[in-house]
Amino acid sequence: MTRLIPFVTRSSRSEAEGWLASLNSALGPHAEIRLLADVSKEDRQASELAIVANPDPAELLLLPNLKWVQSLWAGIERMAAELPASDLKIVRLVDPKMAQTMSEAVLAWTLYLHRDMPAYARQQAERRWREHELKLPEDQTVTLLGLGHLGAAAAQRLKDNGFTVQGWSRSEKTLDGIRTFSGEAGLKQALTTTDIAVVLMPLTSETRGLVGKEALAALKPGASLINFARGPVIDDSALLEALDTGHVKHAVLDVFATEPLPADHRYWTHPSVTVLPHISAPTIKKTASELVKRNVTAFLNTGEIPAAIDRNRGY
Amino acid sequence: MTRLIPFVTRSSRSEAEGWLASLNSALGPHAEIRLLADVSKEDRQASELAIVANPDPAELLLLPNLKWVQSLWAGIERMAAELPASDLKIVRLVDPKMAQTMSEAVLAWTLYLHRDMPAYARQQAERRWREHELKLPEDQTVTLLGLGHLGAAAAQRLKDNGFTVQGWSRSEKTLDGIRTFSGEAGLKQALTTTDIAVVLMPLTSETRGLVGKEALAALKPGASLINFARGPVIDDSALLEALDTGHVKHAVLDVFATEPLPADHRYWTHPSVTVLPHISAPTIKKTASELVKRNVTAFLNTGEIPAAIDRNRGY
Repeated sequence: MTRLIPFVTRSSRSEAEGWLASLNSALGPHAEIRLLADVSKEDRQASELAIVANPDPAELLLLPNLKWVQSLWAGIERMAAELPASDLKIVRLVDPKMAQTMSEAVLAWTLYLHRDMPAYARQQAERRWREHELKLPEDQTVTLLGLGHLGAAAAQRLKDNGFTVQGWSRSEKTLDGIRTFSGEAGLKQALTTTDIAVVLMPLTSETRGLVGKEALAALKPGASLINFARGPVIDDSALLEALDTGHVKHAVLDVFATEPLPADHRYWTHPSVTVLPHISAPTIKKTASELVKRNVTAFLNTGEIPAAIDRNRGY
Repeated sequence: MTRLIPFVTRSSRSEAEGWLASLNSALGPHAEIRLLADVSKEDRQASELAIVANPDPAELLLLPNLKWVQSLWAGIERMAAELPASDLKIVRLVDPKMAQTMSEAVLAWTLYLHRDMPAYARQQAERRWREHELKLPEDQTVTLLGLGHLGAAAAQRLKDNGFTVQGWSRSEKTLDGIRTFSGEAGLKQALTTTDIAVVLMPLTSETRGLVGKEALAALKPGASLINFARGPVIDDSALLEALDTGHVKHAVLDVFATEPLPADHRYWTHPSVTVLPHISAPTIKKTASELVKRNVTAFLNTGEIPAAIDRNRGY
């Protein structure tokens, strides 16, 4: 007998289709995942498990016997906050390729800046043929702001590709072959020698607005900035001012205080800003589907629920 | 006594200034390089050596006692063809960082395509927030067309960064851990499984037009193309047709049959073409200046002329 598992999401049917295909292909014949709208009332009653991706809490209430949900997202802060208090267990999805994918993004957009791709794109629009002087990668200092799991992996990847890499974190850290700084004084010191700064720190009360007027003023004139962390780590008006004066040469922004970035935001049209739609390290369907398969089949076979988040702490 | 060395180039004074600064800083106090226009008739008479970068042959005749010239370019085919027959020795400059710089370019624009940067740039212009599915790098097959010194180095760099890499050359070659193809049948076979093809072969009578109608038809539908070799390796009208139908998704072109690319060429405005002004692996002033210093001071101290090209063979 094929077990039906509801898929609860705010995404549209067409957006959900890629996930349904990938998940069902991984699961094989023993279970089938369907959009909640396509699951009968009887099957909803029987469901002890649902797959979720940014779900509407009201829709989860249509599944009265739910024991746990498998999220397709790593970040579940919003869902945990929206759900009423209950025993429902939330299993988040930590893509084992996340650090690799994030380091790839850091390398890709560092090379984008290092190789002057924004300038060459402007020149193409003007049919202008002009070479910009290329530096050796060892003469470009890239500074990781944040040296957690993702920051450390990105630092290593940049180093492997020839860049001079340094890193900053709030509390002191050491990394093989990478110069590290910490604390407030260390931040300014690191920024004065930085050609490209990459923000990769979590959003906390201490990092909110950390890249503001003072930090930007400390940056080496003409340096560029990449934000792959969370929007509010950067003070947007301070950054726009630094871009307008040319003190900051270019910013690659993948995350914003409000997402999607509102249509009237100055970032969209600023010539020195590259806007990306939060794509630095997406969950990759192929590896994620394998993880979901493992969790779902273990539960169907043995009733075992994978390690769930602590709803009170939020992770 | 400071020795004066003339610098003969078709470049403008302002374009030449960066080179003059870099070369003179490397040379130190014993010799000084000056634009030919700034060298007196007496010093021109005394010159046995000149630095050249795409020189006008008529200007070289103003230096009657010239024994050799140090070119700042690796490619000296044009100069060798333009100069009248004489005993003048041409020393070309082979930047020791060339293979590293070229592999960096191959990696940078492979990541540009892999990470959908052209699509995200179009979306920014339309203020559109939409994620494109990301593949794992091992699920992207990058094929190097040409497996000489540069092709082999680029293949290794792509492999180190997680891509599935294969290579094609006219005659059979083997490379550690990389699937290789050769000959005409091998070319088609390699192209059918290619997501990104990178052209890195020299221009010869056999490679002229090699990437034409047939090769492009053999490419996996939706594949992209990078040309960092020479313009005429690609048949431009066949490529434009393949881009128009969408059979080829995107082309990154750094080299063209005529350079600078003429202002009315369709490539400039084609939405699926990225035009670059021949910048994949420029000579880097810093390392090049060190090489020139070594050659010049050896000559000034001992009269030794570095190995020169064979004017008949052209290299």
